[in-house]
Parts: sequence; C-alpha cells; structure tokens
Amino acid sequence: MTGYTATVTVRLKHGVLDPEAETTQRALERLGFELEDLRAADRFEIDLSAEDPDAAEERAGEMAERLLANPTIHDFDVEVAERE
Amino acid sequence: MTGYTATVTVRLKHGVLDPEAETTQRALERLGFELEDLRAADRFEIDLSAEDPDAAEERAGEMAERLLANPTIHDFDVEVAERE
Repeated sequence: MTGYTATVTVRLKHGVLDPEAETTQRALERLGFELEDLRAADRFEIDLSAEDPDAAEERAGEMAERLLANPTIHDFDVEVAERE
Repeated sequence: MTGYTATVTVRLKHGVLDPEAETTQRALERLGFELEDLRAADRFEIDLSAEDPDAAEERAGEMAERLLANPTIHDFDVEVAERE
C-alpha cells in the first residue's frame, strides 16, 4: 500500500447561479480590482492508502459521488499524487 | 492585454481547527471509506486581462490579501494559466 493525496475539486455546473461568487466579484470590483469573471469551488485534499494511483482515484471519485458533491448541481474532478 | 485565469487556493493554516472538514471525514468513514486525513480549501477561479502572467499573478495575489483570504487564519497560493 502506498500513501496518496487525492484532490477533489467540486464546482457548480454551468448555469447554476452562484450568488456568493457574484457578491465576491462585486466586492473585488468595489475595491478597484479589474476582473472579468469569478467562479468559486470547493477543494478537498484527502490522504489515503491504496494499491496504486488508479485505486486511489477510484475511491476518491466514489467519495465525491456519495458525499462531497451533489450530482444535481455539481461537477467534480479528481487528481491523485503520491505522498512523500 | 492577454486573458488569464488565476486560480487562488485558500487553506486554513496548520493548527487552525476545521470542524467542517472533521465532520466530513467522519461522515465518509461512517459510509465505510478508508482515509487518513481530509483537508478542505476554497478555490477561486478568476478571469482577468493583464499584460503578462506575472501581472495577472500579482493582481490575483492582491485580491487574496485584500479580500479572499484572512491572513490571521489562512494561507493561499496563486496559479496563473493563459485562457484560450
């Protein structure tokens, strides 16, 4: 078994309104920053032990499907890196 | 001016308690998943136009310092990629 860190990024699907991100963008503009768009996402860094990177990615993907993401409104992606 | 996407990741500093992440970890364990640790972070994807990648990174870093992160409890990092 090897130690991996799986990074799960959970984003709102295209077309789902995100009032918090809009408010953050407006607040940055009021502070004088120029930007065209701002999107917010949740990021989970999960340390786990697995046989190989594929097994780690599969387990983290199941965690996202079961709990971390809501498939009605979210997309997610998983990246896996070996831990030192 | 070129279009860039700056990704700002805002994490709690080491030692700052994160009850939400702990609850998420417990919930995954109750579902039968094996994991060693779970850390949560906020991710902001900011589209902006700038002279070059360094200028985009600097502006996104200022946004993090002024608004997106709380320096008392957060660390952040910024990655910049050119937009197609």
